[in-house]
Amino acid sequence: MGVDAVLVTHPTDLHYLTGYPNADAWLLVSSRKAYYVTDFRYTAEAKKILKAIEVVQFPSSLFETAIELAKGQRVRLLGIDEKHLTHYQYNRLKTVAGKGLLLCSSQDVVQSLRSVKEPVELREIQKAIQVNLEAYRYIKTFIRPGASERDLLIRLEGFIRRKGVRFSFDPIIASGPNSSYPHARVTERKLRRNEPVLIDLGIEVNGYKSDLTRIFFLGKMSRSFERILSLVRLAQEEAFKVIRPGIKASEVDAAARSFLGKYDLAKHFGHSLGHGVGLDIHETPRITSKSGALLSEGMVITIEPGVYLNRFGVRLEEMVLVTKKGCEVLSGNFHQ
Amino acid sequence: MGVDAVLVTHPTDLHYLTGYPNADAWLLVSSRKAYYVTDFRYTAEAKKILKAIEVVQFPSSLFETAIELAKGQRVRLLGIDEKHLTHYQYNRLKTVAGKGLLLCSSQDVVQSLRSVKEPVELREIQKAIQVNLEAYRYIKTFIRPGASERDLLIRLEGFIRRKGVRFSFDPIIASGPNSSYPHARVTERKLRRNEPVLIDLGIEVNGYKSDLTRIFFLGKMSRSFERILSLVRLAQEEAFKVIRPGIKASEVDAAARSFLGKYDLAKHFGHSLGHGVGLDIHETPRITSKSGALLSEGMVITIEPGVYLNRFGVRLEEMVLVTKKGCEVLSGNFHQ
Repeated sequence: MGVDAVLVTHPTDLHYLTGYPNADAWLLVSSRKAYYVTDFRYTAEAKKILKAIEVVQFPSSLFETAIELAKGQRVRLLGIDEKHLTHYQYNRLKTVAGKGLLLCSSQDVVQSLRSVKEPVELREIQKAIQVNLEAYRYIKTFIRPGASERDLLIRLEGFIRRKGVRFSFDPIIASGPNSSYPHARVTERKLRRNEPVLIDLGIEVNGYKSDLTRIFFLGKMSRSFERILSLVRLAQEEAFKVIRPGIKASEVDAAARSFLGKYDLAKHFGHSLGHGVGLDIHETPRITSKSGALLSEGMVITIEPGVYLNRFGVRLEEMVLVTKKGCEVLSGNFHQ
Repeated sequence: MGVDAVLVTHPTDLHYLTGYPNADAWLLVSSRKAYYVTDFRYTAEAKKILKAIEVVQFPSSLFETAIELAKGQRVRLLGIDEKHLTHYQYNRLKTVAGKGLLLCSSQDVVQSLRSVKEPVELREIQKAIQVNLEAYRYIKTFIRPGASERDLLIRLEGFIRRKGVRFSFDPIIASGPNSSYPHARVTERKLRRNEPVLIDLGIEVNGYKSDLTRIFFLGKMSRSFERILSLVRLAQEEAFKVIRPGIKASEVDAAARSFLGKYDLAKHFGHSLGHGVGLDIHETPRITSKSGALLSEGMVITIEPGVYLNRFGVRLEEMVLVTKKGCEVLSGNFHQ
């Protein structure tokens, strides 16, 4: 890109590059040297952990210290991440940089590195998926009429804390008509017979995340619910069938969406099909109808078609690894 | 400020102005009309809750819809919040706005409204403080040798979930030498006799937050620990004594810091003295050595001096309401 150095300001990019999770730091990387700039609170810990990177405690202003270090490395063109820098921060940096140092956007450089998972990263993601599946087996035994959505949340929370892990986002536990909101919150509503319970749950292990959605059903499914459930599952399979290195993310989205369209259900599928998952719960590539991204071997993405009607909603979400010739569903038993 | 409308993009500012918590929306407010712009996922819920505000579901781009609505209201100068808009978002908005509509910064307009709490807000904050104090009484009974920091976290989490509330941030539970890191994380370390346990815990009730730090001690305090604990408490009292409407936040910081300086401890107090608390855990005013903010009646701030040595750290944190003539410590029994 022609830049002399990159200023990394997105916390999970820093985690990826250093192995050290800390939201209050910036990393300045030039071809010659890397500086980790943080404040008093994290300096001692950072020095212990980051052996190969010089840790600099900024005395008063992160902006001034970062620019001084860049100038010390004779940087004239500095890449910044415009999606992870506020407009205020950008203006401060620009003011401090003055005329000798130009800022330009290099936002996707770390994101695109991160989209393809290395084996060590894949193992962490698989650990998160395993705990996620265990949590679903565990919670199943508590899904009964009279239990509230919040009761289930408390059970899940206890389970994952005892495992020494954490949620990767606030879980969605949506019973009955609450499931018709794609981003329902957990309420005190009690589960009833002959209703679905949609749970969207993610686990974080050493920073790496999982994201899976399951539908449980109490009692007997109505014909219409059963039909929608089958169609969403089939839409998901359409996506699995087309995933391979080189395909456009938008074509994967289209595979599921056009299948639902045949049943006049595409209008009830109002969100995108999926997204990359790793250190961020949503990362590159986005699986949307407009995405220009191409899939590559080693990417890990969610596939989560949904249909939201007035009485209920159905979403099924699996995590998929793009393989040499197709894909592997990491979170279930699917066969093409 | 001469703007025709303000674009509110900070989630808690939207919560403050609408009473509806949702991170995925923007609010456009002109003197004539307010528009709540959100996507498919939240439109139905938003329409149900926001009676006086027109809810607009953006068909494809939040940027384009927001600018179209502004132009429909003949806005020529639009205030934006440069601290809660990424540089990328700013550039997108500016491109879509074209030449007919200028953007300018109006970042602090909602923040400064928010810094003075209305009675209804103060009641929510006091509820959060009450649960926070209850949680401390509850956890005290589990603080014993052999229990790990994580055990305490699991207990606390169960307690607050049963209360139907949530943490306002990831708690800090730092035993023994872990307490010497101001922002320690929760580890598996087991508590031992003759050691402190520092807990920094916050509760959120209906969006409003509390933030309190307590030190527990197992067994017998060393002379040096006892001395530091007393000095930190006295430093906190020095701050309480000077708080009143009209005083500079920097003078409050100086009151505690200069007291610790007399004992050569200011160099071990590496963070600021406190911050406003409300819908955000850190909000206006910041109580720092550089802050130019003046305190006003109705502000709620933390006062949290700390001293961090190699073997242990001590921080005490209370929440304080600025009153007509001085202050009221909302979270403890302090008398001037």
